Amino acid sequence: MHAALAVLANPARRVERVVATRNAASRLPEGVAPQILDPDAIDGMLPPGAVHQGLAVRAYPLEPIALEAACTPPDGRSVLILDGVTDPQNVGAAFRSAAAFGARAVILQDRKSPPLTGVLAKAAAGAVELVAHVRAVNLGRAVETLRARGYNTVALEGEATLSLAEALQDKRPVALVLGAEGKGVRPGVAAACEYQARIPIAPAMESLNVAAAAAISLYEASRQQS
Amino acid sequence: MHAALAVLANPARRVERVVATRNAASRLPEGVAPQILDPDAIDGMLPPGAVHQGLAVRAYPLEPIALEAACTPPDGRSVLILDGVTDPQNVGAAFRSAAAFGARAVILQDRKSPPLTGVLAKAAAGAVELVAHVRAVNLGRAVETLRARGYNTVALEGEATLSLAEALQDKRPVALVLGAEGKGVRPGVAAACEYQARIPIAPAMESLNVAAAAAISLYEASRQQS
Repeated sequence: MHAALAVLANPARRVERVVATRNAASRLPEGVAPQILDPDAIDGMLPPGAVHQGLAVRAYPLEPIALEAACTPPDGRSVLILDGVTDPQNVGAAFRSAAAFGARAVILQDRKSPPLTGVLAKAAAGAVELVAHVRAVNLGRAVETLRARGYNTVALEGEATLSLAEALQDKRPVALVLGAEGKGVRPGVAAACEYQARIPIAPAMESLNVAAAAAISLYEASRQQS
Repeated sequence: MHAALAVLANPARRVERVVATRNAASRLPEGVAPQILDPDAIDGMLPPGAVHQGLAVRAYPLEPIALEAACTPPDGRSVLILDGVTDPQNVGAAFRSAAAFGARAVILQDRKSPPLTGVLAKAAAGAVELVAHVRAVNLGRAVETLRARGYNTVALEGEATLSLAEALQDKRPVALVLGAEGKGVRPGVAAACEYQARIPIAPAMESLNVAAAAAISLYEASRQQS
């Protein structure tokens, strides 16, 4: 419901088709004329196992925005960079936290990242409509650009000695770089960052889930900036 | 792989059966003698769509631990209480963050909470073996008990005026109560807590994902205690 309503509320979206149960149709904004269908008929239009609340929207994808247009000049808001994170659920959850903490953009690897549809859009709960989406061919270069433009660039790494809270103590806007679980941020991308920092966790656990790490990082950045 | 290896490393687990590919078998601890199978044969033993890395373990469930035994006397570690959170992925992710931030127990509603198996155990990445698991018939009463025993009891609520960081400023061990997305913590359970506090988020988003909120709360508690 959230993800679909957010699509309909976004003037940048070109919507192709809206189907809704009679019940869900009553929650739609004025001017939206859905095709009324039974829940079963909507089931049949969605991927197997997809859960819905009586509303489905087919829309054209949102175009990514160029790095400079999305992130410069710095205006105090954070930027989240995901390096090699391919699980759509995690990327969607990261978008949701990015929107919640007022981040201005999420930057993904151009080719290896999932499209902002389906499971990802649902996990984002509407956030893909709110946060600019950048796809960069070379994330190391994107970090260099943000750093040159005045961002505090911080790569999250489990083995870093500096803590996240320490790395975020200065008041510049923050570009946070997170890698996939297991692999982490690639060395070239981490080296482009001014700081490598860790979220202090107990030795019994190897790592945090990447969406949890994104939520914590964005929270800490927001906490220290306010 | 993580979840299954953690089961095998937990002396409290009664293991019924271990199946592994030849490749995965080489990663098992000494003394574990798996049945060697092809990946396809392992696929056939798991629920449709379940992804595995060549290892599956069938084990008896872990017994929940009584509240007093798991949480008292307070020893500085946090306790996480989930009220009405039924999504196994979110509960599993909350367990993982609980273990990462050194929490001593996760308390769930006795009847309405999912079992600690399958998707939940996988999302927990081994954490269900590390953090005590309490199932309480009456969560309000569990909060009262923890409060009487010296815990700082804090319910997360989107509309609270106090911020999470403010509520956690005193140095007592913390019992954090989180509710399901949309519904939140039930009023009776929230009222039993000493504080109601919010994670400050942008007005454009209605809420955080509950697993993200759990991660942030546990991080903030850990940060302020250390």
